[in-house]
Amino acid sequence: MQIVIALFDRFTALDAVGPHQVLHHLPGAEVIFAAERTRVVTDESRTLSLRADASFADVPRPDIVVIPGGPGQADQMTPGPLQDWLLQADATSTWTTSVCTGALVLAAAGLLAGRKATTYWLAHEELRRLGADPQQERWVFDGKYVTAAGVSAGIDMALALAGRIAGDEEAQRIQLAIEYDPHPPYDSGSPATAKPEIVEGFAARSRFAARG
Amino acid sequence: MQIVIALFDRFTALDAVGPHQVLHHLPGAEVIFAAERTRVVTDESRTLSLRADASFADVPRPDIVVIPGGPGQADQMTPGPLQDWLLQADATSTWTTSVCTGALVLAAAGLLAGRKATTYWLAHEELRRLGADPQQERWVFDGKYVTAAGVSAGIDMALALAGRIAGDEEAQRIQLAIEYDPHPPYDSGSPATAKPEIVEGFAARSRFAARG
Repeated sequence: MQIVIALFDRFTALDAVGPHQVLHHLPGAEVIFAAERTRVVTDESRTLSLRADASFADVPRPDIVVIPGGPGQADQMTPGPLQDWLLQADATSTWTTSVCTGALVLAAAGLLAGRKATTYWLAHEELRRLGADPQQERWVFDGKYVTAAGVSAGIDMALALAGRIAGDEEAQRIQLAIEYDPHPPYDSGSPATAKPEIVEGFAARSRFAARG
Repeated sequence: MQIVIALFDRFTALDAVGPHQVLHHLPGAEVIFAAERTRVVTDESRTLSLRADASFADVPRPDIVVIPGGPGQADQMTPGPLQDWLLQADATSTWTTSVCTGALVLAAAGLLAGRKATTYWLAHEELRRLGADPQQERWVFDGKYVTAAGVSAGIDMALALAGRIAGDEEAQRIQLAIEYDPHPPYDSGSPATAKPEIVEGFAARSRFAARG
């Protein structure tokens, strides 16, 4: 089972590494980071670089596609190496997935037209504009398309996907392997629970603000 | 504020990337991945490689030290580049932290003698043998030493640390930035909640089993 996580400049690291940390534990999984060519790809913070061990051309038919998000998503919304590969890979994939604003890339490729999906909390209206039906959920399955909310939601989505692929018990084993028993010290992880002034300050500074 | 995350072969990726994803959002933070020399360092799964952008010699006096865990921790328990740097860096650090079995490296260096600390759920007895006082907590502060439980606990620990450094509101802002509103699809993330047969099967296969 080949799982390809796509990388692009200014991706959000946890969007990619969260699902990797879950999915590499699946029996028979071969996880590969890929980009338009083999190279080191730097994240949104410019302080974390992950190696893409394959080019998109090397992995034309993955079983599972994972598209992370991050500020660099904005440069991946039109035909180009990532979109071209995504369309090709999606034609034969078993699951096509995204984390955070990676859903906008899927939507821009036309893969989420009329489908239920989720994305980063600030990007729901943008996702709607791109033809999807945004849901206030941590992750959403619609056919073979699986989308996660922002950043850390990729861990939850990947565990849910692991359950579909390998059964609940295997997914539970993976959850224990990564001791995923979250206890955030604050309850500020969603706009529904964060202080209004924090939500508003954030939304005003967001790259989605002008259009949101 | 310089934050150095140490890398070594066969580290666990989320141990390092979870805290990075939180701490790089801190105002004034400069986060640097370091190893004994600048190179690409491959994780426990052999499918994820992070670049160490600095050598340990380049970063002798970080404000915050982060030591991840993973199977490769076993090779970092005696004097060598990582332990030598850790002792030097700890002499002037404001915070010295670990995730998962990274606590065993801190303990082996003598930094947790008599201190309350936590680690991966399977490694508590090993941590005790190394002179620390293991706690069943998601993260533990004891003086300037901050230790997290397994893998995903580094996210919780880093948010708690962000709160100490920059105040609750800043930490809450970061939590919203990474939409950290966890909803695991199962309740199997700790030995207290996972099915007993999963816990036992895991413990029997663990590298800590023979000594645990």
